[in-house]
Amino acid sequence: MQVKILGSAAGGGFPQWNCACSNCRRVREGSFHGKPRTQAQVAWSVEPNQWTLLNASPDLREQIEATPELHPRDGRKSPITEVILTGAEVDQALGLLLLREFHSFRVHATTAVRQILNEDNSLFGSLRRFPNQTCWNDIPLGRPFTAGGAHLKAIPLGGGFPGFVNGARADSADPAEASIGLLISPVAFDPPGYQDRTLAFLPGIGRIGGPFLERLKSCDVVLFDGTFWSDEEPTRIPGITRSARQMGHLPVGGPGGSLELLRSLNGTRKIYIHVNNTNPMLDESSVEHRAVRDAGWEVAYDGMEFSL
Amino acid sequence: MQVKILGSAAGGGFPQWNCACSNCRRVREGSFHGKPRTQAQVAWSVEPNQWTLLNASPDLREQIEATPELHPRDGRKSPITEVILTGAEVDQALGLLLLREFHSFRVHATTAVRQILNEDNSLFGSLRRFPNQTCWNDIPLGRPFTAGGAHLKAIPLGGGFPGFVNGARADSADPAEASIGLLISPVAFDPPGYQDRTLAFLPGIGRIGGPFLERLKSCDVVLFDGTFWSDEEPTRIPGITRSARQMGHLPVGGPGGSLELLRSLNGTRKIYIHVNNTNPMLDESSVEHRAVRDAGWEVAYDGMEFSL
Repeated sequence: MQVKILGSAAGGGFPQWNCACSNCRRVREGSFHGKPRTQAQVAWSVEPNQWTLLNASPDLREQIEATPELHPRDGRKSPITEVILTGAEVDQALGLLLLREFHSFRVHATTAVRQILNEDNSLFGSLRRFPNQTCWNDIPLGRPFTAGGAHLKAIPLGGGFPGFVNGARADSADPAEASIGLLISPVAFDPPGYQDRTLAFLPGIGRIGGPFLERLKSCDVVLFDGTFWSDEEPTRIPGITRSARQMGHLPVGGPGGSLELLRSLNGTRKIYIHVNNTNPMLDESSVEHRAVRDAGWEVAYDGMEFSL
Repeated sequence: MQVKILGSAAGGGFPQWNCACSNCRRVREGSFHGKPRTQAQVAWSVEPNQWTLLNASPDLREQIEATPELHPRDGRKSPITEVILTGAEVDQALGLLLLREFHSFRVHATTAVRQILNEDNSLFGSLRRFPNQTCWNDIPLGRPFTAGGAHLKAIPLGGGFPGFVNGARADSADPAEASIGLLISPVAFDPPGYQDRTLAFLPGIGRIGGPFLERLKSCDVVLFDGTFWSDEEPTRIPGITRSARQMGHLPVGGPGGSLELLRSLNGTRKIYIHVNNTNPMLDESSVEHRAVRDAGWEVAYDGMEFSL
């Protein structure tokens, strides 16, 4: 199973269009010790020439062009066959609308996420131009499912529905379906394959309990929430009043941050993804970046790849 | 009045994500005599540090980063203050959702386009996170209006609503509001300023009559529909059965094409924009490109700029 990180930044990307913070300003000036990053986007392949997208970022057009494996062949035949959505946020889902132009593919999402996008937004009619252009599959929360040649388990992550979701929809939907993480493996989760070759995808996790932490120890790779360095970081952004944890993002540093909580995860490759433009660890000359690397973590970058 | 072309391709861009036509394949290989192009996007400025977007393309994040004049200053202060939409197609409007993250701006659109986007799509709630984040102004069809420090007139272009628009909305809306062109000038349209410094923006025009052609003769610059070279070109694209004219795009070449019809437009700078990835005139070594240049036309490219 080949996995590619097409985008590694949080919503808005790095730099972010309306942000002139120290990080964004310096990366535009070319004086930043670190890389620009597009919005979080992962793709994997189990079968030759068949790729599954993990979420669909607004930067998907640029990300596809930067990834030769995802280029079309023979007229208009894209190797992208499936898309899995872990939530309905703009930065998780807007890229679906970039996959228009008469291509047929399968979308996996929880019932609530499907309703929010496909029923409450007429724009998604652009993916229903011919019969079966898009086939939506509801992701079950209680049992494993398959997609893109892989075996998956959904992990409800808490956190609420996106702010744009209207009251009636939010009131009627199951909150456990708002935001999920995923365990993904090329082999079935039943023993004895249980602990084998598993990727944990957790870009929007706000807290982590002991049993789930134990489960992560059997994973080969963890793509973990790297949105904010500290709990108060987002409150310094004009317009945002909630802390990182209140937004559903466990901070990286500080007491009870992921660096501390996941210290015992020694046999697992640990990679931060979904890094916000304000996060000081993006700067490779920062003490925060050094702390992350010293703790055995990596920071995902666009173009990173690995196999499972 | 400073005008910048941030993107010059039709919907999907060039190359297009799922297309491996001769143009797209060669531009990916680096063997194409011509430039890649992002989806059509224009911006103008009359006042210092205040920019108005003409439509909001899905490539807007990349386009803003490529344009230093549009970079934010002082924390989170973007110079983008207004957006004018000429239709509700994905490639005209999706970029509005990229202008989220607590920035306040004004949107101008016809009543129907506003309703299609803002009322029929819950995602647009992400632009209503605080009071007056987005202020929508209905564009009148019968009289001039002002936006972004300029004077404008809307020209209904015919053509229908986008395919995704549901039946009830399409039935109740005024078809004249589906797609408009614009005359744009830094000076008022009343005589004697009538003929002075006017830009015509017509990326989706399916036919042109004598009186309007006469009106164009008094324009300084015409940004004209360059989507398809020939009427049958789109029918060679898998999934599309309509001709260029049936899709609301006057072809460039052939009998009754824009090269022929606008031959008498001598005093006006004529630029094709919204060029589809399949259009042979993108290839600067083609006979079609030569024919366009010989007729006094230019083909817009990303980064092109001019003043009025």
